[in-house]
Amino acid sequence: MLKNLLGPEIEEVIKEKDYIGLKEAISVWEPPEVTDLLLSLPEEDQPILFRLLSRQKAADVFTLLHAEQQEQLLKNLTNDHIRTLLDELDPDDRTRLFEELPAQITQQLMTLLSPEDLREARKLLGYPEDSIGRLMTPDFVAIRPEWEVSRALDHIRKYGRDAETINVIYVVDNKGKLIDDLRLRTLILAHPGKTVDSVMDHHFVALSAYDDQEVAARAMQNYDRVALPVTDSEGVLLGIVTVDDIIDVIEEEATEDMHKIGGLEAIDTPYLTTPFPMLVKKRARWLVVLFLGEMLTAAAMGYFEKEIARAVVLALFVPLIISSGGNSGSQAATLIIRAMAVGEIALRDWWRVMHREIFSGLALGAILGSIGFLRIAIWQKLFDLYGVHWLLVAETVALALVGVVMWGTLSGSMLPFILRRLGADPAASSAPFVATLVDVTGLLIYFTVAGFILSGSLL
Amino acid sequence: MLKNLLGPEIEEVIKEKDYIGLKEAISVWEPPEVTDLLLSLPEEDQPILFRLLSRQKAADVFTLLHAEQQEQLLKNLTNDHIRTLLDELDPDDRTRLFEELPAQITQQLMTLLSPEDLREARKLLGYPEDSIGRLMTPDFVAIRPEWEVSRALDHIRKYGRDAETINVIYVVDNKGKLIDDLRLRTLILAHPGKTVDSVMDHHFVALSAYDDQEVAARAMQNYDRVALPVTDSEGVLLGIVTVDDIIDVIEEEATEDMHKIGGLEAIDTPYLTTPFPMLVKKRARWLVVLFLGEMLTAAAMGYFEKEIARAVVLALFVPLIISSGGNSGSQAATLIIRAMAVGEIALRDWWRVMHREIFSGLALGAILGSIGFLRIAIWQKLFDLYGVHWLLVAETVALALVGVVMWGTLSGSMLPFILRRLGADPAASSAPFVATLVDVTGLLIYFTVAGFILSGSLL
Repeated sequence: MLKNLLGPEIEEVIKEKDYIGLKEAISVWEPPEVTDLLLSLPEEDQPILFRLLSRQKAADVFTLLHAEQQEQLLKNLTNDHIRTLLDELDPDDRTRLFEELPAQITQQLMTLLSPEDLREARKLLGYPEDSIGRLMTPDFVAIRPEWEVSRALDHIRKYGRDAETINVIYVVDNKGKLIDDLRLRTLILAHPGKTVDSVMDHHFVALSAYDDQEVAARAMQNYDRVALPVTDSEGVLLGIVTVDDIIDVIEEEATEDMHKIGGLEAIDTPYLTTPFPMLVKKRARWLVVLFLGEMLTAAAMGYFEKEIARAVVLALFVPLIISSGGNSGSQAATLIIRAMAVGEIALRDWWRVMHREIFSGLALGAILGSIGFLRIAIWQKLFDLYGVHWLLVAETVALALVGVVMWGTLSGSMLPFILRRLGADPAASSAPFVATLVDVTGLLIYFTVAGFILSGSLL
Repeated sequence: MLKNLLGPEIEEVIKEKDYIGLKEAISVWEPPEVTDLLLSLPEEDQPILFRLLSRQKAADVFTLLHAEQQEQLLKNLTNDHIRTLLDELDPDDRTRLFEELPAQITQQLMTLLSPEDLREARKLLGYPEDSIGRLMTPDFVAIRPEWEVSRALDHIRKYGRDAETINVIYVVDNKGKLIDDLRLRTLILAHPGKTVDSVMDHHFVALSAYDDQEVAARAMQNYDRVALPVTDSEGVLLGIVTVDDIIDVIEEEATEDMHKIGGLEAIDTPYLTTPFPMLVKKRARWLVVLFLGEMLTAAAMGYFEKEIARAVVLALFVPLIISSGGNSGSQAATLIIRAMAVGEIALRDWWRVMHREIFSGLALGAILGSIGFLRIAIWQKLFDLYGVHWLLVAETVALALVGVVMWGTLSGSMLPFILRRLGADPAASSAPFVATLVDVTGLLIYFTVAGFILSGSLL
């Protein structure tokens, strides 16, 4: 709120070129506040404010911007400024920047890097997308087991300033192989004269640079660490992954899953800054696939056209019945997809899940079926809508509901298992996908039940 | 009465230190009698009597005291005694105790609880469900501004072992008011002779115990901290929230939102261990609501029964058209709900979102409409399914699709805003909810369009 109010005032100060006063004023602000202020300014004023920030704060603020905002800002900075900025960014944030910017700009930026940073950037960009390698930073503090605790602390004091975290210190042998991780508190609380070796427990969890970022997220949760080391296949320490990056990973994965469950392709840019054509494309693709699938309902309806013509009353309940199947299917799919994503359910649990879902489906179907039956009976008494065979119609609808809801629940819960078994993402069995599947089969169930119950009377 | 008379005598016994006799004498007394006796004694004698009670009776007596009397008594007991006492107290009594005592004392007491009791205490402790208060731990290290850095480090060495984190150290004044937070590295890297005050920047972010846990999650992400302090309305430090708890919050919130989007009530226990009746209940409630809403489709279809009877061909496309509206609506709702949840979109953005979604809906509707038109045209050429008026039918379906998809997109994107404006959870505008809404209105759109285009020919 504060910054929003300050926006116009700061604009004024910038116009008056009172840069020294402004610099002083914002020097105590936290990066998120500065970011808000920056974004509230007109684009031409943004670089002016940005250049007034200290090197560290400039880097922090830059990290908080979205890719498009970063790109915009970079356009208005001199190469010198960009060089300083890139220098100050943490390697993992730099990797993310390079990943998200258009390739040409990334290439230009990389020419501004120091040879050392360039080597590092190339290495980090060499790991697969969404791998732990892309997430890690090489800025950690490593000590040797034969050192005394006091020497280790001196080393931390000297090199800790540039490290991403010194909450965890890594012990490596002379080949760079990771042999333990120690919390800083362990060293602080230990007698300074002891060797590092003597406070080690030789117990650590390390990640592989090629593993998926989700692995890092799970590990960090399970082991309750704020940082985890990343090693190569030989066990050599390559870098560390810190908890703040993991939070972002967890949020991104959840967003992706949610988008897929909602029946669109995952969009990884903020809604308001996603270009319009992209927004439409990511939705149109799935919508068209679903539409093509849903066309089968027209075919199914066409197949039962004679029955509908003879008993128009049947058509009245078509939306009610197929949507009930779709809703119960989307519930089941959502439950199972999320339980799989957070690791509550594994592939081998399919049998237990199926068992539960058959009975869930039966219970839910019975509930909806009873309501449906009552609805028809009551409307019949009140308005005499459904003719002499109303009881048979009510039975048809009720029985069809039990069948359709059971079928929806079962397919919604089993589809994620099938997809995972096939190596696909379970979240792709989105609510609309399940609903479409169940719509088509739901019609078959409905008209088959109708055929049995109504033949000789209405049909 | 008896005890009032006994009072002076007991005082005598205490003076003579005949504790064994006294213990035996009061062992048969009922708690209310002991309480009266206790209160009749001078303050300094009360803890002596109290310590002679059996564990269970001590707890019962303690429960009968008023808050101020409890506070008074606690001051005169050793930590070991208090721990035993807290252990014996019933959870609800303990909660009341903690609620009524001043914050600082509550905080002290909570450090004496076993981890299990602490979890329970926190859960029960007056703070609203899902508030930050439920999440915080009182195990932090606090230092004073006037101390030298070396003294602060000694203090950390001494008390840090039991703290939840020593990555961040809190500076409080003599009233327990939080005045700064310092990273451990700042202290480690500072000259030991400096005062704490001199390395402070007086800039910190504190959470309120009554705020929603989501606030803590956002703050932790924005400010990139591994722990954040929690204060009461006076600014007194109550506890800290650490990043590992926040990760759980983020996952839980995502799960809740996903469940709601999937059209069921949020289930916070793992799928396989959720009791079956609960599993059915959480799904049945929404399913029934949706079913009742969906019944309006039967009413809408009934309203157009004559049109359907006259042109059965219209009925064939009902599932296709309403499901397209439902799918586009569920896409839009999912996108907006998630963007709101991660803070990309605020209430004030509704106008920009509406603007984008009208055009998204138009584009998506045009795509599906064209495919629908082509489908009918091609099937007509191949199978001659739709009679002489097939072109009019195709136009009806295409136009209805544009309208229904636009309407679905618009209502899916605006419903979360409306819900949030009303103070409800935007995620409640689940995909099935939007789909149901759009099903009913979609039918109206479809048959209205049909009325315009087909009147005089088919209708």
